[in-house]
Amino acid sequence: MNKNKLTSQEENFSDWYNQVIQRAELADYAPVRGCMVVRPYGWAIWENIQSALDKRFKDTGHVNAAFPLFIPMSFLEKEKEHIEGFSPELAVVTIGGGEVLEEPLVVRPTSETIIGHMYAKWIKSYRDLPVLINQWANVVRWEMRTRLFLRTLEFYWQEGHTAHATAEEGQIETLKMLDVYTDFAVNVAAVPVIPGLKSQSEKFAGAVQSYTIEAMMGDTKALQSGTTHNLGQNFAKAFDIQYLDQNNELLYCWTTSWGLSTRFIGAVIMTHGDDQGLVLPPRLAPIQVVIVPIFRTDEEQSAVMETTKKVEQLLSGIRIKIDDRTEMTPGFKFNDWELRGVPLRIEIGPKDVEKNAVMISRRDIPGREGKSSISIDSLENRIPKILDEIHDNLLAKATKFRIDNTHDPKDYAELKGLINSGWAFSYWCGDANCEAKIKEDTKATIRCIPLDQGETNGKCIYCGNSAKEKAYFARAY
Amino acid sequence: MNKNKLTSQEENFSDWYNQVIQRAELADYAPVRGCMVVRPYGWAIWENIQSALDKRFKDTGHVNAAFPLFIPMSFLEKEKEHIEGFSPELAVVTIGGGEVLEEPLVVRPTSETIIGHMYAKWIKSYRDLPVLINQWANVVRWEMRTRLFLRTLEFYWQEGHTAHATAEEGQIETLKMLDVYTDFAVNVAAVPVIPGLKSQSEKFAGAVQSYTIEAMMGDTKALQSGTTHNLGQNFAKAFDIQYLDQNNELLYCWTTSWGLSTRFIGAVIMTHGDDQGLVLPPRLAPIQVVIVPIFRTDEEQSAVMETTKKVEQLLSGIRIKIDDRTEMTPGFKFNDWELRGVPLRIEIGPKDVEKNAVMISRRDIPGREGKSSISIDSLENRIPKILDEIHDNLLAKATKFRIDNTHDPKDYAELKGLINSGWAFSYWCGDANCEAKIKEDTKATIRCIPLDQGETNGKCIYCGNSAKEKAYFARAY
Repeated sequence: MNKNKLTSQEENFSDWYNQVIQRAELADYAPVRGCMVVRPYGWAIWENIQSALDKRFKDTGHVNAAFPLFIPMSFLEKEKEHIEGFSPELAVVTIGGGEVLEEPLVVRPTSETIIGHMYAKWIKSYRDLPVLINQWANVVRWEMRTRLFLRTLEFYWQEGHTAHATAEEGQIETLKMLDVYTDFAVNVAAVPVIPGLKSQSEKFAGAVQSYTIEAMMGDTKALQSGTTHNLGQNFAKAFDIQYLDQNNELLYCWTTSWGLSTRFIGAVIMTHGDDQGLVLPPRLAPIQVVIVPIFRTDEEQSAVMETTKKVEQLLSGIRIKIDDRTEMTPGFKFNDWELRGVPLRIEIGPKDVEKNAVMISRRDIPGREGKSSISIDSLENRIPKILDEIHDNLLAKATKFRIDNTHDPKDYAELKGLINSGWAFSYWCGDANCEAKIKEDTKATIRCIPLDQGETNGKCIYCGNSAKEKAYFARAY
Repeated sequence: MNKNKLTSQEENFSDWYNQVIQRAELADYAPVRGCMVVRPYGWAIWENIQSALDKRFKDTGHVNAAFPLFIPMSFLEKEKEHIEGFSPELAVVTIGGGEVLEEPLVVRPTSETIIGHMYAKWIKSYRDLPVLINQWANVVRWEMRTRLFLRTLEFYWQEGHTAHATAEEGQIETLKMLDVYTDFAVNVAAVPVIPGLKSQSEKFAGAVQSYTIEAMMGDTKALQSGTTHNLGQNFAKAFDIQYLDQNNELLYCWTTSWGLSTRFIGAVIMTHGDDQGLVLPPRLAPIQVVIVPIFRTDEEQSAVMETTKKVEQLLSGIRIKIDDRTEMTPGFKFNDWELRGVPLRIEIGPKDVEKNAVMISRRDIPGREGKSSISIDSLENRIPKILDEIHDNLLAKATKFRIDNTHDPKDYAELKGLINSGWAFSYWCGDANCEAKIKEDTKATIRCIPLDQGETNGKCIYCGNSAKEKAYFARAY
């Protein structure tokens, strides 16, 4: 595995990314073009993401359910913008049980339509509202240029779908879930995302407004890491989702949807990783602490292993792996676990045992600086704190990196000059034409328009007309 | 919801089953033929099944991963029995991104083939073995006659896939997972399954031997509730899953697979349910205890709600629902929660508050007998024990029902007479012809041949020839 050195990020960020995923055994290419196999170590990260998000969804009153994989083609056609947005990306089942189907079935690219159909059936009265349902599912979008985790034909996600009695409640839900995503990204994944509004040209097909959390990757490109959509009454009208209000009047519901996918694993890799490989934030790491026992003689082995067992017991609330493989050297193991991004390594050798101590190495602080000797008696207390410190440090580093690489260009020429190595935070007049021209010239898109900018005004970075808000412009994955 | 009385089991078991599922809001029919929507209450049962099984899988050394939904048609054709078994049931994607695909993609009916392909790539040496991977996934089989949970086009399951160095290890794994399923069924779901071997005609397409846990439903029909398969080297040879052993010799692996699906929810419904509706085993119930506060005046309300909150706090480790809906009568609520199978109901009225007590009603014991008054001071201690007692009682009742309806007919005529209302446990000579004739005459199949029958012999129930083991014969779902 360590035969060839990892390509450095500087040399080729994209190669670095692909190599890290393969060598750390996060994922592999499937025999079907554009599909991926998520390997156990990668899936364990996803399980930790799931459990952190699922808890937050349930705490905010949502429940899980499961809707079908197959959607009749006619359903997608009921919402005009929706079918326009998704029709180039559909996988279509035309044969079932050996027979050609009367109506082709689409493998869901997202589930607004089929869920809308069911909500129309279930919702009768204001008493049935709000409906707050999420599902954990696989979806398929026939992408042409694919990349492990970032863009694959099939991917895994959660999709929340809610129905409300009023426009206001729909908007509150849309922003509440944006907050949930932000909280998760920052406080669990240590990814300092910027929440904000999407421009109309970047919104979800069928939404009134889309919101996003945007993260800066290690190459300064942006990654849309989760989105929430206020769907207004678009899907309610297309699918007849209606309710009787207190006055017995029949009204259309207001719906929302929101999703976060395995793409987020790509965000974690590219936010924290370095030239040694993955760096996993402790709250998502499948292995939070790896223990490497070191010994030569049988006598040393027995003393070291005894201490190792003791340490394991002391740290019972932590996800631990003891690497007792006999055919590898400690040096090989150190590199291996660094590549795999384990936040903290504990080495236990005969001298440590004598001192009633262990040697720890932090993955987030390379070299001598991240190493220290800790008394075994203080481990139980110290290790959880050190894991929190690692989280805080990763978040601070990534935040500093984003700030350092976000600029406020004085004019469009300056924007064009910096956009290949950073983000621009600039006034925008709101005209889709300016947005399109900037994209044409620089490949940069509006990533988001941060909320609550207050009273502010300036001149549009492209056309110079009066502008009332600033937007982040960046090249993106 | 209670406008029309539920059809009784006696009257029409099948109607009873469909009505319970719809009225308890476990699942609904999807707009695609044969597909289901699992509603939040049904999905919460599945989540509890998942968590109980997943813990057992991890405790036995397995890890989770995710393999693609789409399988190239050519993969399925590599194992002859496998494609013969599955080809009538395939859903096929022929169009992707607007273009006709060169090779059609099958929506996985099961994943032995694509996982076999990946294992061939990952496994190099004996050091890589065993590989012990599970996935939680949706699969599609184009069934003609469908039934909610029992047989749907798309269903949800886990599928374990393991690779081993020796035949013996493969067999040990196959039986170990049968034990895991049995333990789960009995000790979590209170479903007294019989583990055993499938006959060759009933085995999985491509397996050497299949094992099953079989359960008796409330109408005495059998339900296959989980299966494990010893695949021998069939898939290893079809997909070149090979490893270098300690002597540097290249050998084929031995593989297994095992699965348990949302069908198991059907087993729970039909094992425990009664004419009032669902009866959920406490360890799987999304709501273990429902509290119904009862009051008329504002004064009563404030006292009752105070006690309700106190009770909720005392039972913090238990899944509780407080039904404080104001527009329904207590009687309506009682029926409603009985229909939904909540194991235990707590009523709190003004008189209970005065006595510092609550009234409890057990779902498993109808009428007065299941009711008692319990002092609030003893609740914290008593309620978990009562939930265990309910589990034990459900298991005992279902076991007695199975025993009472399992017969040992003295001859084939007697078997034919009893098989419409029970199981026959009879000697079988092992001849597929006898098995086929019995099926032709009675629709009964061999459900399983229990393991470890010891030294026994008798005469085949069909042909009268010498037989060394007994098998369960029954009509099945």
